[in-house]
Amino acid sequence: MDKDTLKPSVNFPKVVIIGGGFGGIQLTKSLKHKEVSILMLDRHNYHTFQPLLYQVATGGLEADSIAFPLRKIFKGQKNFLFRNADVETIVPERKVIVTSVGEYAYDYLVIATGSDSNYFGSKDLEHFTMPMKTIPESLNLRSMILQNLEESLVEKDPTNKAALLNFVIAGGGPTGVEMAGSIAELKKHVLKKDYPELDINTLNIYLVEGSPEVLGPMSKKSQLGAKEFLEEMGVTVLLNTRVTSYDGEKLVLSTNQEIYTKNVLWSAGVRGVMPDGIPMDKFVRGGRVKVDEYNRVDGYTDIFAIGDVAAMSTDGYQNGHPGVAPVAMQQGRLLSKNLIRLLNKEPLVPFKYKDKGSMATIGRNKAVVDIGKIHFQGIFAWFVWMFVHLMSLVGYRNRIIVLVNWVWSYFSYDRGSRLIIRPFNRESMTEKTDNK
Amino acid sequence: MDKDTLKPSVNFPKVVIIGGGFGGIQLTKSLKHKEVSILMLDRHNYHTFQPLLYQVATGGLEADSIAFPLRKIFKGQKNFLFRNADVETIVPERKVIVTSVGEYAYDYLVIATGSDSNYFGSKDLEHFTMPMKTIPESLNLRSMILQNLEESLVEKDPTNKAALLNFVIAGGGPTGVEMAGSIAELKKHVLKKDYPELDINTLNIYLVEGSPEVLGPMSKKSQLGAKEFLEEMGVTVLLNTRVTSYDGEKLVLSTNQEIYTKNVLWSAGVRGVMPDGIPMDKFVRGGRVKVDEYNRVDGYTDIFAIGDVAAMSTDGYQNGHPGVAPVAMQQGRLLSKNLIRLLNKEPLVPFKYKDKGSMATIGRNKAVVDIGKIHFQGIFAWFVWMFVHLMSLVGYRNRIIVLVNWVWSYFSYDRGSRLIIRPFNRESMTEKTDNK
Repeated sequence: MDKDTLKPSVNFPKVVIIGGGFGGIQLTKSLKHKEVSILMLDRHNYHTFQPLLYQVATGGLEADSIAFPLRKIFKGQKNFLFRNADVETIVPERKVIVTSVGEYAYDYLVIATGSDSNYFGSKDLEHFTMPMKTIPESLNLRSMILQNLEESLVEKDPTNKAALLNFVIAGGGPTGVEMAGSIAELKKHVLKKDYPELDINTLNIYLVEGSPEVLGPMSKKSQLGAKEFLEEMGVTVLLNTRVTSYDGEKLVLSTNQEIYTKNVLWSAGVRGVMPDGIPMDKFVRGGRVKVDEYNRVDGYTDIFAIGDVAAMSTDGYQNGHPGVAPVAMQQGRLLSKNLIRLLNKEPLVPFKYKDKGSMATIGRNKAVVDIGKIHFQGIFAWFVWMFVHLMSLVGYRNRIIVLVNWVWSYFSYDRGSRLIIRPFNRESMTEKTDNK
Repeated sequence: MDKDTLKPSVNFPKVVIIGGGFGGIQLTKSLKHKEVSILMLDRHNYHTFQPLLYQVATGGLEADSIAFPLRKIFKGQKNFLFRNADVETIVPERKVIVTSVGEYAYDYLVIATGSDSNYFGSKDLEHFTMPMKTIPESLNLRSMILQNLEESLVEKDPTNKAALLNFVIAGGGPTGVEMAGSIAELKKHVLKKDYPELDINTLNIYLVEGSPEVLGPMSKKSQLGAKEFLEEMGVTVLLNTRVTSYDGEKLVLSTNQEIYTKNVLWSAGVRGVMPDGIPMDKFVRGGRVKVDEYNRVDGYTDIFAIGDVAAMSTDGYQNGHPGVAPVAMQQGRLLSKNLIRLLNKEPLVPFKYKDKGSMATIGRNKAVVDIGKIHFQGIFAWFVWMFVHLMSLVGYRNRIIVLVNWVWSYFSYDRGSRLIIRPFNRESMTEKTDNK
């Protein structure tokens, strides 16, 4: 606090929000005009629209069009301040947080830190596979894919050449399915023309999923529909199969199948991201923190957690709610009301998730949508998917740019952003670790 | 050549082009349908539209919209092959070049490698100032500016705080003028709203130029007009002044003035970029290589140089032509014809530069244009500048995206891309050096 020129609005209770994701943003917006003093901290100076990261990774969109400056979102909101910082420790006894730019006191603390890739303890998988939870990670993935294609042209050893052209996606959730489909389209429409000297049939795409179906939480129809779409597009879908080991070249599956590959995307699991300071016994599986029906962290009255990092076992979800944007946003909106109720000494309202449906896109004219008991798929589902995602983007400029790119790609079968802006270098690892 | 699957068109003479800038692209395009086998090498897989790098650095444009995949430019050109590689050495005796991905033989070699920042031997300036010749460098600059602004908010020491808010641009050529103007507009229209807790008047912008005027090669009217525009916008223009030393914090000028600053952009000089293998005595000042009126490198009949890296002293330009895109493009176009003449044993045609004029933009509605003896400035000049730059961009998608961004910025007074995608870290220096 010493070096900081921060001047919170006098006398208003200090609400400190860690994280500018879907939950933190909704909470902050809903607290506009309220008599609180908000401080938001994030390690990035922008909000990331995670559902479209796979399009950045596969050259369909610029990184800048799915990110939005956090300061800009709350421009003119008088009770809001932002600090671009890493939060290191929460000190509940002193009601402060320790960050990379100093200490900040709170009256109410909201942890909205989201989730990161979960390698289930495997150092090899963490080191050798590519995650895709942030914009820098997506750009690394884009660079790696394009670099390996370039390298395949000058590689004579057949095993190494095959490894450069085999793509394995571990995890058949929405991210894995969308990524597999997107690489299949890149192969069909772009790479064939870009690399005339490459036999495009030597490029293989595998989607590996441990459970008996892709898109776990969706309807049976969507699961089967997505699998069919993927197979039509030339993706090899391996169900009931897990990655057993990977050393950067040889990937071994639980079926004992071996794949030589230099391109492994890890989307097989996530875990909550959390600063130090909350005792270990407050956490459940997947690094999520136990919260009650008001999103209060177990054992505290002034610390809350919302979104991916929170595990609420009331409300009919024994293992916590799904890690999706609508949950985080609905929890953020309710928490803004509950914080005001708390200040007014009124009783709190418990959280009740309103599931509006789920969807995934596999490729051009190919998507699956579940809304309640209703299922549909194909071209109409694809347009619904695009409309919903376009409208969910923060900022009009971003919506226009994304729309222009989509329309362009639809008619030209092209992807505009297949540039290796920053070469990816696994050996130095700086790219991978510097950007968290 | 051993590992490479390269199969050049049988029997056609091998034309190897190093560099996919304005010159290399024009040459390759003009050789379409000719009976030559072209191999282009570039360390990036994309062409960079350098005149708009300053807009990437100041958050006005996405990097992807001013870059274009090289493979895509020549899609379908049967006599073209591309390799993404660094060229290390030219071996004229064996008629091969040695690259990071192997050796390639040539019948005719064209060096179109362009220019890089020139620090005139100062290691300090090279280490502590920021260059802006490539897309990664522009993104570093953007990150640094935004990081220093964030840091200034939590900095209490007044000297350090001032250093974070002082911006010095060394060199008053087009790049320096455009950058100074762009930061001034960022200050006025964006930062004031983004950082309500910052006293925006403490942010100072200096443009330092060694000669008696900015925009050296332009008309007196343009020089004075640009200076007036800059001063109107709050930029301190220091003429007849050079940077004497800079240690990362204290900048000393030739007038003995000292400025504490952490933001120094270096645009005070360029030098030719050249692989090893051409003898030292073939070079002139600024690292350019001597060429004759046919762009043949002095002493060779099969090695050519075009664009920034070439110094042609015929054609009325004693110190070589100006380092601008039209020179490179005109030389590329003529060389394509001369190569065919050479193959047909016809006499070559000497190069004659057709100067179509020059222009620079300072800010919204503020530009200067010289066409022959005609000078105009202001809003019409600004629209001319925009039109010419838009039309010069490679690719329709890029033009649409840039236009959308410009229209958006014009009406909203906003910049869409003020994101710190990759934090800049001078200490590790990986970001600065890895991307060359």
